[in-house]
Amino acid sequence: MSALSGSNLPTTVAMTTIVLLIKCQDQAGIVQAVSAAVYRHGGNIISLDQYSTALEGGQYFMRLAFAVQDWAQQGAAFCDDFAQNVAQTYATDWQVFDSRQRKRMAILVSKADHALLDLLWRWQRGQLACEIACVVSNHDHLRRAVENFGVPFHVVPVHGADKAASEAALQALVADCDLLVLARYMQILSADFVANWSMKIINIHHSFLPAFVGANPYQQAYDKGVKLIGATAHYVTADLDQGPIIEQDVLRVGHRHSVAELRALGQDVERNVLTRAVRWHLDNRVIVAGNKTVVFS
Amino acid sequence: MSALSGSNLPTTVAMTTIVLLIKCQDQAGIVQAVSAAVYRHGGNIISLDQYSTALEGGQYFMRLAFAVQDWAQQGAAFCDDFAQNVAQTYATDWQVFDSRQRKRMAILVSKADHALLDLLWRWQRGQLACEIACVVSNHDHLRRAVENFGVPFHVVPVHGADKAASEAALQALVADCDLLVLARYMQILSADFVANWSMKIINIHHSFLPAFVGANPYQQAYDKGVKLIGATAHYVTADLDQGPIIEQDVLRVGHRHSVAELRALGQDVERNVLTRAVRWHLDNRVIVAGNKTVVFS
Amino acid sequence: MSALSGSNLPTTVAMTTIVLLIKCQDQAGIVQAVSAAVYRHGGNIISLDQYSTALEGGQYFMRLAFAVQDWAQQGAAFCDDFAQNVAQTYATDWQVFDSRQRKRMAILVSKADHALLDLLWRWQRGQLACEIACVVSNHDHLRRAVENFGVPFHVVPVHGADKAASEAALQALVADCDLLVLARYMQILSADFVANWSMKIINIHHSFLPAFVGANPYQQAYDKGVKLIGATAHYVTADLDQGPIIEQDVLRVGHRHSVAELRALGQDVERNVLTRAVRWHLDNRVIVAGNKTVVFS
Amino acid sequence: MSALSGSNLPTTVAMTTIVLLIKCQDQAGIVQAVSAAVYRHGGNIISLDQYSTALEGGQYFMRLAFAVQDWAQQGAAFCDDFAQNVAQTYATDWQVFDSRQRKRMAILVSKADHALLDLLWRWQRGQLACEIACVVSNHDHLRRAVENFGVPFHVVPVHGADKAASEAALQALVADCDLLVLARYMQILSADFVANWSMKIINIHHSFLPAFVGANPYQQAYDKGVKLIGATAHYVTADLDQGPIIEQDVLRVGHRHSVAELRALGQDVERNVLTRAVRWHLDNRVIVAGNKTVVFS
Repeated sequence: MSALSGSNLPTTVAMTTIVLLIKCQDQAGIVQAVSAAVYRHGGNIISLDQYSTALEGGQYFMRLAFAVQDWAQQGAAFCDDFAQNVAQTYATDWQVFDSRQRKRMAILVSKADHALLDLLWRWQRGQLACEIACVVSNHDHLRRAVENFGVPFHVVPVHGADKAASEAALQALVADCDLLVLARYMQILSADFVANWSMKIINIHHSFLPAFVGANPYQQAYDKGVKLIGATAHYVTADLDQGPIIEQDVLRVGHRHSVAELRALGQDVERNVLTRAVRWHLDNRVIVAGNKTVVFS
Repeated sequence: MSALSGSNLPTTVAMTTIVLLIKCQDQAGIVQAVSAAVYRHGGNIISLDQYSTALEGGQYFMRLAFAVQDWAQQGAAFCDDFAQNVAQTYATDWQVFDSRQRKRMAILVSKADHALLDLLWRWQRGQLACEIACVVSNHDHLRRAVENFGVPFHVVPVHGADKAASEAALQALVADCDLLVLARYMQILSADFVANWSMKIINIHHSFLPAFVGANPYQQAYDKGVKLIGATAHYVTADLDQGPIIEQDVLRVGHRHSVAELRALGQDVERNVLTRAVRWHLDNRVIVAGNKTVVFS
Repeated sequence: MSALSGSNLPTTVAMTTIVLLIKCQDQAGIVQAVSAAVYRHGGNIISLDQYSTALEGGQYFMRLAFAVQDWAQQGAAFCDDFAQNVAQTYATDWQVFDSRQRKRMAILVSKADHALLDLLWRWQRGQLACEIACVVSNHDHLRRAVENFGVPFHVVPVHGADKAASEAALQALVADCDLLVLARYMQILSADFVANWSMKIINIHHSFLPAFVGANPYQQAYDKGVKLIGATAHYVTADLDQGPIIEQDVLRVGHRHSVAELRALGQDVERNVLTRAVRWHLDNRVIVAGNKTVVFS
Repeated sequence: MSALSGSNLPTTVAMTTIVLLIKCQDQAGIVQAVSAAVYRHGGNIISLDQYSTALEGGQYFMRLAFAVQDWAQQGAAFCDDFAQNVAQTYATDWQVFDSRQRKRMAILVSKADHALLDLLWRWQRGQLACEIACVVSNHDHLRRAVENFGVPFHVVPVHGADKAASEAALQALVADCDLLVLARYMQILSADFVANWSMKIINIHHSFLPAFVGANPYQQAYDKGVKLIGATAHYVTADLDQGPIIEQDVLRVGHRHSVAELRALGQDVERNVLTRAVRWHLDNRVIVAGNKTVVFS
């Protein structure tokens, strides 16, 4: 790396962390080709994760993080080099993320605040690498809680009749965002809206999917007498509760717990699972593969 | 208690531990009535667990363990007293278990040995309060493993045509048992057979029910991309995979795990969950309530 | 409730939940005697937990919760009855708690807010059965966060020289409290102060005690290369980090985690462990027995 | 890879999996240099894990697994190439492991069988990539259990006076082994013996180290009233219970558990922790770094 440092370089050229995500057919030489490209531009590899669905003929996924000086100038050159000398040869889907350019995130909620507050709290403490553009709700209940964090709060009521109008209003508020998080948002988004935000909406479902899809999963869990309750964070697709799962967790319960207690206990699992999924997405650790995810956590 | 000790009593009259299981409508005074009966017969209460489904008008469940001397003589008197002075007044379903009379258990298996071996191993170490009458399989594969433990092994082949004959043979082998454990037994028992062993057959299902009912749950889990796999021990009813759940647990998995690896990892969860459920049943800690269980673990 | 009791009583006289904690030598008949007393005063037992340190000659602990009408009138009579007919006979230490009389709690903090905020947040949601009298800190940093919850915030600076004066000021602020919670309070209370609040101060220590007593446990954990980090909630005694343990938990870590990351991860364990310990104490589920605790959770 | 396939190649040249472990100063270009070497010899990278203790100037660790055809011929050439073109340039410590050459392991036990049986059982099922040369004990108790698995069993009594003679006898039995596993072996090996097997002896200690070093940790845990018990697998060094930790885990316990029950419960944690540590060592996933380990699990 020192080879790149000219004598007139300011001593404090900040290092930038760049994340590369790659998807292609598995074939020998990919690591060598990618790491050579990074090396040519003075990058120092911080972490490299890879996964192939099969020893031969599998689909290949890589996440590579590297530190580099002077990305403002190097970035374009690197991308050109990579496109010509790696992406073409290996027919890769690839994305490059500059960690200084934080994603913009909007949070959608209804009345429940537990998942929302955990996100806001961790964001305020610097534990989520994003900007929070705003919180949007179909109710006014959580305005004060949100505004206490210095985050804009908008109400977009949803009524059966003019769902399209609601979604248009919502879209106008979040148009410049990179990620929508449904932190117990109790409305179903239309297939059109979802298609427009493909793999950019994360929802928290309050059960261990695929058990207890649909409404009132804690009542379903109580009726079934399960000994664990869970939560599932997943990307939203047009099929309700069927999108690629990012993270899940469970909590031990028993016969003593009422539905209300399951609901209260479940809130801790919900907020933890959603926060982990959002963090991994923001850190570019999730690659969608069909109806499943590869998570380099 | 000393009042019961005659001067010519041997100094080492063994204490017996008795377990009472009670089910009735919740009403004030039950604990007082039950504990008074125990006290009248010199019992010292070791543990008392209770649960009511509602503060008022609920269904009430109690497990009470007490130590008592000379149960061989006291037992009948206690039961008479209890029947007249408690059970009638409070309209209770009740059962009494003498911990010296160990339940007889038979284990049914096919070819997989992991759940079987864990049961045999813990039984040999004195961790399961039962006699093991025999192991019955529809294959001969596990004969040597079982006989190494000094446990009889029988083969009862199952063919589509003469299922009734197979079940008759099975029934003859286990007729004097108190509990059948399906430790990955890959045959479906008939509704008639199951009805005859109501709440006396425990099965281990290799998923977190109600997710992935039916065949090949690890393949289903893989296809769905879940981040946890689980196992469920439940009583067997005529509805496949629908009986009252006794115990469940899960294990964290990820995109890297093949179906074969999920299956191998899952074996550890299966055996742990089944062993816990069997132990609780043997220790009279499980009360069935409709399609659910109350487990005083 | 008594205000409501007239001849024109509404039909819905509220039930009160009373908790009894009992400690004595184990002996036959205790459950019968206690439950009979409850029954005589119209109580309906909601839960009964007991534990004896040995089958014979052990120390006996009981927690009994019962619902009763009209406690305002019944309470004194019950206590007289219990004192004469149970406590004397069985030589019990006993305490009775009326669940409508919430404990008053003060929280002591320094600059870290994670444990504090979790307590405030759950209290605001009705998950902690207490009043929060105030938060006291040796710094002003957390004033706004606390006052947002509508809770008084006081600063009591601590300087080496006038520690006695600081503790006097602190004592004046919390004199009417039932419980002090040290939510990462970085000052050591004097033996005199602690003696005055025996088993009424709960501290969260940021390690799995007795590993890593003393300062900077995350650095110690890092240096040792442990694979789990933990937290311990305990009553405060004059011996630093040695008081009776109420609750502990751990989190899996690895070689990749820096000391700073251990500290950040550990905050989640700390707040969860402290909140559980505080909740159990508030619900009268903890009985101290020598240097250990019996927790009927 | 196809470039290596000559027309006269047998169609079923088996693929070999090779594992490289590397330790050096962190510097840009390592991944590129290593992966280029692998590529030059037709290897296809299966997994690559790396870790650096600091972004700049840290110590660097890599584990790289690759599949390659015809290693019998390629191996020497690869090693020469790597030594000259990578190891020298980057001043790396490195080791290369051919997964077809299974490590030879001996297990040392005393009378307790739980950890031993779990190892033998998993080995028999193909879940441990090793040969088991023999089991050595200072007692004859477990002979039959071991011989049932077809594994040689030797007794080497240990008496205070002739410890050196005992260790000489032990050494003779295990001289050709790559790994010694102390599966609850209740003797302390001499510093000389240990020095001769540096980082090749794995011990299971029945506590969450560094809590409860020394004798009878379950009694210590009981006396302290901890709410979790644990186990620690570590490499053995001359400092008792102080060697680099490979793996740890814990189990929730409470006031109800006697010392004997803690011991029985702890056995499950002990065997799980030891088995994981042994498996990671056998799979070349553990790199020792000072008094700590890097585990690429």
